[in-house]
Amino acid sequence: MMPSQRSQVPGFEVMSILARIDAMRAAGKDVVSLTAGEPGSGAPVAVNQAAAAIHASNTVLNYTAAMGIAPLREAIAAHYESWYGVTVPPERIAVTTGSSGAFMLSFLAAFDPGDRVALARPGYPAYRNILTALGIEVVDLDCGPKERFQPTIAQLQDQLDAGNSLAGLILASPANPTGTMVQRAQLEELAAWCVEHGVQLISDEIYHGISYGSENVSATEMGEDPVVISSFSKYWGMPGWRLGWMVLPEHLVDPVSRLAGNVSLCPPHATQLAAVEAFTPASLDFAASQVSGYAAARERVLGLIPQLGWGEVAPADGAFYVYAHLGEQLERFGDSPAYCAALLEGAGVAVVPGTDFDPVAGQHWIRLSLAPGEQAVAEGLRRILAFQAVRA
Amino acid sequence: MMPSQRSQVPGFEVMSILARIDAMRAAGKDVVSLTAGEPGSGAPVAVNQAAAAIHASNTVLNYTAAMGIAPLREAIAAHYESWYGVTVPPERIAVTTGSSGAFMLSFLAAFDPGDRVALARPGYPAYRNILTALGIEVVDLDCGPKERFQPTIAQLQDQLDAGNSLAGLILASPANPTGTMVQRAQLEELAAWCVEHGVQLISDEIYHGISYGSENVSATEMGEDPVVISSFSKYWGMPGWRLGWMVLPEHLVDPVSRLAGNVSLCPPHATQLAAVEAFTPASLDFAASQVSGYAAARERVLGLIPQLGWGEVAPADGAFYVYAHLGEQLERFGDSPAYCAALLEGAGVAVVPGTDFDPVAGQHWIRLSLAPGEQAVAEGLRRILAFQAVRA
Repeated sequence: MMPSQRSQVPGFEVMSILARIDAMRAAGKDVVSLTAGEPGSGAPVAVNQAAAAIHASNTVLNYTAAMGIAPLREAIAAHYESWYGVTVPPERIAVTTGSSGAFMLSFLAAFDPGDRVALARPGYPAYRNILTALGIEVVDLDCGPKERFQPTIAQLQDQLDAGNSLAGLILASPANPTGTMVQRAQLEELAAWCVEHGVQLISDEIYHGISYGSENVSATEMGEDPVVISSFSKYWGMPGWRLGWMVLPEHLVDPVSRLAGNVSLCPPHATQLAAVEAFTPASLDFAASQVSGYAAARERVLGLIPQLGWGEVAPADGAFYVYAHLGEQLERFGDSPAYCAALLEGAGVAVVPGTDFDPVAGQHWIRLSLAPGEQAVAEGLRRILAFQAVRA
Repeated sequence: MMPSQRSQVPGFEVMSILARIDAMRAAGKDVVSLTAGEPGSGAPVAVNQAAAAIHASNTVLNYTAAMGIAPLREAIAAHYESWYGVTVPPERIAVTTGSSGAFMLSFLAAFDPGDRVALARPGYPAYRNILTALGIEVVDLDCGPKERFQPTIAQLQDQLDAGNSLAGLILASPANPTGTMVQRAQLEELAAWCVEHGVQLISDEIYHGISYGSENVSATEMGEDPVVISSFSKYWGMPGWRLGWMVLPEHLVDPVSRLAGNVSLCPPHATQLAAVEAFTPASLDFAASQVSGYAAARERVLGLIPQLGWGEVAPADGAFYVYAHLGEQLERFGDSPAYCAALLEGAGVAVVPGTDFDPVAGQHWIRLSLAPGEQAVAEGLRRILAFQAVRA
C-alpha cells in the first residue's frame, strides 16, 4: 500500500521546530520561541466567559447550520459595516472552522483540477499545499523587494500575455511572512483587473486590525466579486479555537453551503456562540490593546537590524512578523535553516527559516514572530546578539 | 464568474428539512423532529466541567500539534486496549476535527484523482460527495436486504473480474442510515480481501458503542492495514464539538500529518483537552446509559411497523436509526419525499427521505432517528398513526 501522489505536500518546517522546542523545554532548557503566529493574550474575557457558561450549564451542543449560526453571521456583517462602512448581507457570510476551513471550501467551490491560481512567493505555505492537494496548479509570482512583496498587475498580465489562463488570485494583506500590506489604490486596481479578466480574487484578511499606521483596506470595499477570508485567530487571540469566516460572492454561496454540509458539517458550536461576544466594545478594546504590544516589539527588532547583521527587511506594515534577509550572517552560517538551528541550539532562541514560505529564495531569509510580545522579543534579541558576538 | 464543476455536489436534504422545522417552530408550531443523528444527552458532565474550567481561567489556547495533543492520543489508544484488546501506538492515532476532518484527510492521503473507491448504497452521503469533490470515482455497491445492506466479497470481486480497478473500500458498521452491522467473520473476510488485492479499507466506526446485542468489532482487530475512523459525536453525545480521530496504517501517518498541518492546522484545542475526560469510568457509564434509551425507542418503532403500514426494515443492529421501506404508504403518498413533506406539514413530525442516502432506490425508503429519545419517538409515532388514519 502506498500513500497518494497528492499527499506528498511538504509539511510546515515550523511544526518540526515547535516539536524541537517542546523536547528542549522538556529537558529543562529555557527557550525563547519567536516562531508561531500565536498571540500570547488569549481570547477576550467576554468570549471565555460565554464559553465557560455554555459548558458549566451542560448545554447540549448539536450541529449548527453548515454556514454557521445566524447571530454570529449577523455580528460579522455588522463588523464590516463598522470597520469598513460596507453592507454585507449575513446570507453571504459563511462561518468556517478557522480560516483553514475557509481556504478548503473556497478552493473547492471556485477551482477545478487543472485550473491555474496565482499567488505571491514568499507566502503562507498552506495556500500552495492545499491547492496542490486539490489538483490545482499554483502559479508563483516572484514578489521581492521590487514588488514590495505583493503581486502586481504587470505580473498577472504577463501570465495572460504568455497565453496562460488564470482562474484565481490569492492575495494576503497583511501578508504572512512579510507583514506587507496592499494599499487602497493597488487593491482597487487588482480587484478591477480580476473582474475584467474573469479571475476569482480570494483576499486573505486574517491579520486585519494588526497594523502600524497603514490603513486596513478590505476587498469587500471593492464590490461583491472577491472571496474575503478572515479569522478570530489573530486579532482576537484565538488560534486554538478554530473559527474563521468568509464573505462570498453570490454565485459561490450555494456551492459553499453544499460543500460545507458534506466536508465539515458545521464549525464548532460553542465557539460560534461565544464568538458573538468578540464584537462587544470591551472585546474590541482588548484586541486593540494587544496591537500596541506588537508595535513595541516591532520597533525593537527594526531598530536593531544593523547590529544584528541582517540585510533587507520586508515592509512590516501589519501582522506580527518581521521577514528579514540574513545579510552578512549568511557568510557565517550558510543558509537560514542552518542559522535557525544554530540559534536554537546555541542561544535558545527559535525563529523560522524562510524555506517554509519561499521554496526558491527562502534559504536566505528568516521570519521572526512578534506575537509572543515585547518582553520575549527583547530577550530573544539580547540572546541573538550575545550568541553572534561569541561566534564572531 | 462560475462555481467549479466539482462544487456541484448535492446538499444534504436533511439540512433543508431542518431549516423548514426551524421556520415552523419560529411560527409557533410544535414539531417532533426525528431527523438528525444528534443525541439529546449532551456531553458527559466531566467533559463539560473540564471545558468550563479551561475557559473560566482564560487559558491561552494556541495551535496544538496537527495530529492532536499527546494525552488525548494516549487516552484513545488506551480505549482500543480496553474495548477491543488491541494495542494501538498513539503515534498511529490522529485527532481530527470531527469524523468529517478524518474523511477529508484520509481520502486525500490514500486516493488520487481517478482512483475508484467502493461503498455501500444506501450510505452516508458525505462519503460520496467528498470523494467526488476530490476527483475520486465512486463505485456504488447495491446493498439491499439480500446483502444485509453491507458490501460483500462477491460484489468487490465482480468489480475486479470486470476489469475495474479498486483503490479503496469504505465500510460503515453500524451504518448510517440502516444501522446494520458487519459481523466479525465478515469483517475478517473483507479486511483480508482488501489486503490481498491492495485495496485501502476505511472503516467508519463512529457509532461504536451504540448497538443492541450485536458485538462491536473494530477493523483495528484485523491488523494494521485499515484506516479506522471514529468520533466523540455519537456515543459521547458531542456532535457540535467537532472532534473525532483516526487510527492510521504506518504508511499514512506522515502523509496525514503533513496534510493536516496544511489543511486544518489542528483540531479545536479546548475540546481536545476536555475530551480526555470522556474516557473516565463515570463518562463511559454516562454514555452507556444513553444506549438503553435508544433501545427502548427502537423497540417501540420496530413493534409498530405493521400498524404504520411500512414495509421492509433494515436490520437496526446498532446506531440510532430505523431505515424502513414505505410499503403500502407508497401507494398513497407516491414517494418518500412526498411522504416526509406530508408528515411534516400534516402531523408535525419530521423524518428524512431515503433520497439523501440512496440516489437510486431512496425514494421508497425513509430514515427515522431514535436519537431524540423514547419520549419523542413515542409522540412522533402516535402522530404518524393518527395522521395516516385520518388520511385513510
